[in-house]
Amino acid sequence: MKGNVIVGQSGGPTAVINASLAGVFKTAMERGYSKVYGMCNGIQGFIDEKYVDMADYIKNELDLELLKRTPSAFLGTCRYKLPEIHENKEMYERIFEILEKLEIEVFIYIGGNDSMDTIKKLSDYALLTGATQKFVGCPKTIDNDLAITDHTPGFGSAAKYIATSTKEIIRDALGFSYKKKNVTIMEIMGRNAGWLVGSAALAKQEDCDGPDLIYLPEVPFDIDKFVEKVENLLKEKDVVVACVSEGIKTAEGKYVCEFTSGSDSKDAFGHIQMTGTAAFLANLVHEKLGIKTRAVELSTLQRSAAHLASKIDVDEAFAVGGATVKAADEGSTGVMVVIDRVSDDPYQSATGVYDVHRIANGEKVVPREWINEEGDYVTEEFVDYVHPLIQGHYNPMMVAGLPRHLTMHQKSYKDSKKMINIQ
Amino acid sequence: MKGNVIVGQSGGPTAVINASLAGVFKTAMERGYSKVYGMCNGIQGFIDEKYVDMADYIKNELDLELLKRTPSAFLGTCRYKLPEIHENKEMYERIFEILEKLEIEVFIYIGGNDSMDTIKKLSDYALLTGATQKFVGCPKTIDNDLAITDHTPGFGSAAKYIATSTKEIIRDALGFSYKKKNVTIMEIMGRNAGWLVGSAALAKQEDCDGPDLIYLPEVPFDIDKFVEKVENLLKEKDVVVACVSEGIKTAEGKYVCEFTSGSDSKDAFGHIQMTGTAAFLANLVHEKLGIKTRAVELSTLQRSAAHLASKIDVDEAFAVGGATVKAADEGSTGVMVVIDRVSDDPYQSATGVYDVHRIANGEKVVPREWINEEGDYVTEEFVDYVHPLIQGHYNPMMVAGLPRHLTMHQKSYKDSKKMINIQ
Repeated sequence: MKGNVIVGQSGGPTAVINASLAGVFKTAMERGYSKVYGMCNGIQGFIDEKYVDMADYIKNELDLELLKRTPSAFLGTCRYKLPEIHENKEMYERIFEILEKLEIEVFIYIGGNDSMDTIKKLSDYALLTGATQKFVGCPKTIDNDLAITDHTPGFGSAAKYIATSTKEIIRDALGFSYKKKNVTIMEIMGRNAGWLVGSAALAKQEDCDGPDLIYLPEVPFDIDKFVEKVENLLKEKDVVVACVSEGIKTAEGKYVCEFTSGSDSKDAFGHIQMTGTAAFLANLVHEKLGIKTRAVELSTLQRSAAHLASKIDVDEAFAVGGATVKAADEGSTGVMVVIDRVSDDPYQSATGVYDVHRIANGEKVVPREWINEEGDYVTEEFVDYVHPLIQGHYNPMMVAGLPRHLTMHQKSYKDSKKMINIQ
Repeated sequence: MKGNVIVGQSGGPTAVINASLAGVFKTAMERGYSKVYGMCNGIQGFIDEKYVDMADYIKNELDLELLKRTPSAFLGTCRYKLPEIHENKEMYERIFEILEKLEIEVFIYIGGNDSMDTIKKLSDYALLTGATQKFVGCPKTIDNDLAITDHTPGFGSAAKYIATSTKEIIRDALGFSYKKKNVTIMEIMGRNAGWLVGSAALAKQEDCDGPDLIYLPEVPFDIDKFVEKVENLLKEKDVVVACVSEGIKTAEGKYVCEFTSGSDSKDAFGHIQMTGTAAFLANLVHEKLGIKTRAVELSTLQRSAAHLASKIDVDEAFAVGGATVKAADEGSTGVMVVIDRVSDDPYQSATGVYDVHRIANGEKVVPREWINEEGDYVTEEFVDYVHPLIQGHYNPMMVAGLPRHLTMHQKSYKDSKKMINIQ
């Protein structure tokens, strides 16, 4: 009889992070592990001994399917960096004490760069102390900035949401252009890597010209040149749509969002919280060119809009979840599951495993040669890379007109009918 | 042999405004009219003799279905108010000259309050001069603020998008709440009528508590009381989500968005362009309570997200489009087609016609008794009213991973493959 598995979720959520959780659960059950615990709010909650038995929530295959369609971290997430082992050995002793108590054999952590740091440290500590638990990372981030893996689960669905929204926003803007030019600036997530903003280029199809300009954080942003470009475009066309990453900065290294006020807050990893780039640029264009402008921030929906998830992405997220358990079960530790692109056309992928030491805290940005020379659009190679990842629609399960999610605190039919009576 | 029909689109777009256009085309063809002209950019383009033959674009039933799924005005829209007849008789003479030239028998205008004013004036002028053309209005607005009709096409899909997004945003916010409370302020369209922001209440289901606070423009907004409410809610829970209309104003009549800068631009009808309400309130809550806050503006996607259209809404928009032609064909003029709710449960509706003089320029706001006493939520009656209108999913036709639209300038397959090669 095998022992138990514990799984946690960490960092920013995605539309498919729970599909990986579902994959972990299913494979762990199939491979004969006794229980799958879910740590609440990642390693931070785990240290406080907050965890649940996943079997209390996944009672049948319908629940499993609902979990795959539920955005944001089912178990809750955290942004919590473990100290270095030598800095706080007591914390590691505490963590391994809890692992022993729960008879954990496999520890899976679903997350991005910062989360892989957790897998690295825990597997290092196990190595140092001879502990036998296996620690495996499951890749997840809309930012697609993890090294080694061809791409990360979560990216494809975010790209699909961004491309779809860009198409719909362009169509909206076109309707209003008669004798009145207009400029829309869309702000898209991606602090240092332009994978997400570049995906707006996929809106370019037979029925849509796509955005006119795309600015990735990989290339220094020239504010004056940007205004000049928009001005020139307006000589030829009535509607201009520019997509900018939240993380674009000038050659001097100043974030464009820092030109506005109130952007000085930082998260637990010291990252600046970004917002206001589009608003700043829209105001600037309006002032300089006297054109009607609109700023659109795609907000948290770009990472949580499960209703528009890509089927490829859901399927791969589910597969990598299962592959983490398989890897641990077959003896791997200190590794992350990666996605290898086997073929481009037709698109095929497979999972592999890779030493987490070579992944943690790294950041994969868009290669310069996938951005055009001017630095204001992506190339065909970029589009060909993203294109397979947005394919297929994963139908939400609609209940009473809205997508149904699986949550920890579900109400009964009777209660939900009463619930709205709030007067 | 019957003469021709001309149809135009006016005002803000919706996800289903083209379903009405499709309905006009189909019924006009079936009833034996010779041609259906589409005026480009509404009455403004019509005066400049900008129009197309709809048969050039709708060549088969697939095109018709694509048109039903295309958001924003296929023909382009305008915000153009006709002068009073006595102010500029020449303009009316000009309009009727073009109508004669094109052998128009039926003039259909798809729009909201301001657009119905156009139908009213043109039918009045025809009455004064004995012109025989029929003028019929087709209701359309996400704002749902047209009088007499039970609701307007476009509202149901916007409500579905808002409720779905609210659910996904709440789920996203919940994932992050461990030892770190957070507040999200969602800004939703609706200048004077709270139908859209109230629809966020539909996010309250068995799997979601819904937003905590909903502020409609019908009730004066007390900024201090709002901050106090949020503070009290944070004593009981970690995540607070408040939905506010872009048009909320204080008891003194000052729009909340006016507390921020840069909101002084007005459109052709003298309406203030609104934005920044959520950002202002989020900054305020952050300053006063020291809590992590996020402002989310749902942007133009709430009116153009055809990928999440409600089936009821698409079907009704198509039906009212057809009903306008039927009404004109049977002799009506100076009327607007309305939707009557025949039954609530099961939901059934039917179209009727109503004197446009009693509709134009009116504004139907949310009845005070459908807002709770405190003025910070909607009642069960409100939810019961909206609920049927968001039902059913109208599957987008996905091509290369994204919803396909019908547009005036479609590229060929060969061109579209080249198109991305922009370096």
